[in-house]
Amino acid sequence: MKISTRGSLLPPSPIRKLKPFADAALASGKHIYALNIGQPDVETPAQMRNVLKNIDKKVIAYGPSQGLAEYQDALVRYYAFHGIALDRENIIVTTGGSEAITMAFTVCCDPGDEVLVPEPFYTNYNGFSVAAGVRLRPITTSLETNWELPSVEAIEALITPRTRALMICNPNNPTGKVYGAEELRKLAHLARKHDLFLLGDEVYREFIFNGEKHTSLLDFEDMHDHVIVMDSISKRFSACGLRIGAFISRNPQVMQAALAYAQARLCPPTIEQLVAVPSADLGSDYFKRMVAEYRARRDAVIEGLKDMDGVEFQVPNGAFYIIVRLPVKDAEDFVVWMLTDFDVAGETVMLAPAQGFYSTPGLGKDQVRIAFVLNVEKTRRAMDILKQGLATYIKVRHGRG
Amino acid sequence: MKISTRGSLLPPSPIRKLKPFADAALASGKHIYALNIGQPDVETPAQMRNVLKNIDKKVIAYGPSQGLAEYQDALVRYYAFHGIALDRENIIVTTGGSEAITMAFTVCCDPGDEVLVPEPFYTNYNGFSVAAGVRLRPITTSLETNWELPSVEAIEALITPRTRALMICNPNNPTGKVYGAEELRKLAHLARKHDLFLLGDEVYREFIFNGEKHTSLLDFEDMHDHVIVMDSISKRFSACGLRIGAFISRNPQVMQAALAYAQARLCPPTIEQLVAVPSADLGSDYFKRMVAEYRARRDAVIEGLKDMDGVEFQVPNGAFYIIVRLPVKDAEDFVVWMLTDFDVAGETVMLAPAQGFYSTPGLGKDQVRIAFVLNVEKTRRAMDILKQGLATYIKVRHGRG
Repeated sequence: MKISTRGSLLPPSPIRKLKPFADAALASGKHIYALNIGQPDVETPAQMRNVLKNIDKKVIAYGPSQGLAEYQDALVRYYAFHGIALDRENIIVTTGGSEAITMAFTVCCDPGDEVLVPEPFYTNYNGFSVAAGVRLRPITTSLETNWELPSVEAIEALITPRTRALMICNPNNPTGKVYGAEELRKLAHLARKHDLFLLGDEVYREFIFNGEKHTSLLDFEDMHDHVIVMDSISKRFSACGLRIGAFISRNPQVMQAALAYAQARLCPPTIEQLVAVPSADLGSDYFKRMVAEYRARRDAVIEGLKDMDGVEFQVPNGAFYIIVRLPVKDAEDFVVWMLTDFDVAGETVMLAPAQGFYSTPGLGKDQVRIAFVLNVEKTRRAMDILKQGLATYIKVRHGRG
Repeated sequence: MKISTRGSLLPPSPIRKLKPFADAALASGKHIYALNIGQPDVETPAQMRNVLKNIDKKVIAYGPSQGLAEYQDALVRYYAFHGIALDRENIIVTTGGSEAITMAFTVCCDPGDEVLVPEPFYTNYNGFSVAAGVRLRPITTSLETNWELPSVEAIEALITPRTRALMICNPNNPTGKVYGAEELRKLAHLARKHDLFLLGDEVYREFIFNGEKHTSLLDFEDMHDHVIVMDSISKRFSACGLRIGAFISRNPQVMQAALAYAQARLCPPTIEQLVAVPSADLGSDYFKRMVAEYRARRDAVIEGLKDMDGVEFQVPNGAFYIIVRLPVKDAEDFVVWMLTDFDVAGETVMLAPAQGFYSTPGLGKDQVRIAFVLNVEKTRRAMDILKQGLATYIKVRHGRG
């Protein structure tokens, strides 16, 4: 039995590939500081968790395909808090940000169509695009130029007759880059000129460490027809296990097609929407505390990296990731080695090899992504172990140092 | 801005089309007996609901992409209860049966490929197939022949070089037909002969009213490489709002691709999986009570139909639906009229026009689907109102009676 071509092309998670090594390390009794995935150790707000105690539905029934009215209204309040005026009809509640991305690809693209996206990018865009039959075309950005977008002309040169959309994750996973209004305007200009959709993955909206205000694609008054924002509560409310996201657009034709998609799959998770409702009203104090916590983690990572020889990086202003170039030939080999061959007093560190975040072959081979998902104390300890591991690895593998 | 062709082809729910009429009826103070959708009034088992009170996770974190181990194990027990031996590696927990269907289409078919499915069929197969770029080809079945499959030769004549799978819902939504081992063998034979996948939507597995044992595609020992079963807890545990389903196969290549798909969307709903865990151990008493309840509802519907002039139907042995041919030209017009122009003491009935369950143009225009989702008392009252409404409609619209 032959499975489909796209089925065979669906990329297994580049992180899962390393899971056997992590499992073996755990089985041998090692403790692993997991800085490889975006799963924060931060508590889900009690206001949300407390909802579970008070759910008293005798019949857990289908909700509306566009989401429960009370959660749609909560999202209207959440966006208003950020100065973005939306109505219920601009919002479809999705099963995680993941479903919102698939919906966007489906509504904007037919099989064989292309989407331009700055690389490095969130690896799972690959899976969604293969499943939807869409080709991702990378707009390469680099550490050397602080992950800035290339010129309008350079991006324009990548547009083909099959290009249907420009997509950007802002703040960016995996680089931590925060794109401001000026850079985003480049994309808006091209989207208007070439009739392209403009897709924004804004799940890290609040994660900005230098006090700047986030620019949402939804802020562009003249781009309502072009813009789709894909959102999720996973990171901002440390609720990754609740699969609740949102698909946002002010283009009625887009919303009509997205609603038809949503109706086919009936509804998003009902209980988990109810848990999400109080998130809209946690207020500015919540976000201030949250940003301060992640800024402290970011600072602990940077402090640790500054103390290591030969690493290169840009200080990220957003999200909770950093891409670091290591003085090694093969970052994946180093990541595996840290699991199999190294520990400090029974402890080691797991990172994500960055190659999986690039689609251009060869890029990122000497880079890793570090996630600021552990508290400051643990982060400091992890960075210390990483420093010792890197120095030892270089001696062992490269004969230097 | 032009959306994608498939976006414009995504069919809006044929039931939603009628929602404005239902809303207007409700606004005018009418009570509606909703026999149009598969949302039972049965309580979700207390053992499941009680889980909510005892969830004490401080961080609601990502679970494994294939599902929580404890829920995978619960599913292994559930299938063992039905005499189906599975291991964890045969199971990926999905976000509802809906996601399992999309996964099956993606893993089996490339854009432009075809899937054969008996019609009438669950309308949402249309949405999933359009999104996945897959063409559904109907194997027409009819009320006159009690929804039996046509001959092997007739089905074989529908196979083209693009056909990749045969799909069957058993027991069937919308006909209530239960396909036995002999009929399913026809499909298995063709699947082997033509190297096709055999997809089984078995979400109504326990809903069989004549005491026969359900034949699962998973029972066919010689078809392990071909069979994918798409499952859901929605109906059997009256937990439609919990978006928990399963993708089942013993073909390792299929499971590898499905897991890659699952990894891209990270994980199914965590809290709702926890709520689903006790469902595996409700035991045979639970199913006996459940089947008795739905059999009584089915009997109340049949009793009511037998009392109406000019209706045609087959007594369904499974699921909780029946397709009825009405003595009207346009069943949708009748359904709307029942909402807009008719009531008995302020009460009316809503049915689903059956045309949306057919893909062959013109079929089902004089048919409706009735769902056995209300308790016996309400069902009897609804059937009485339906009888009066039908007689009045025929007088008014057709000048007969």
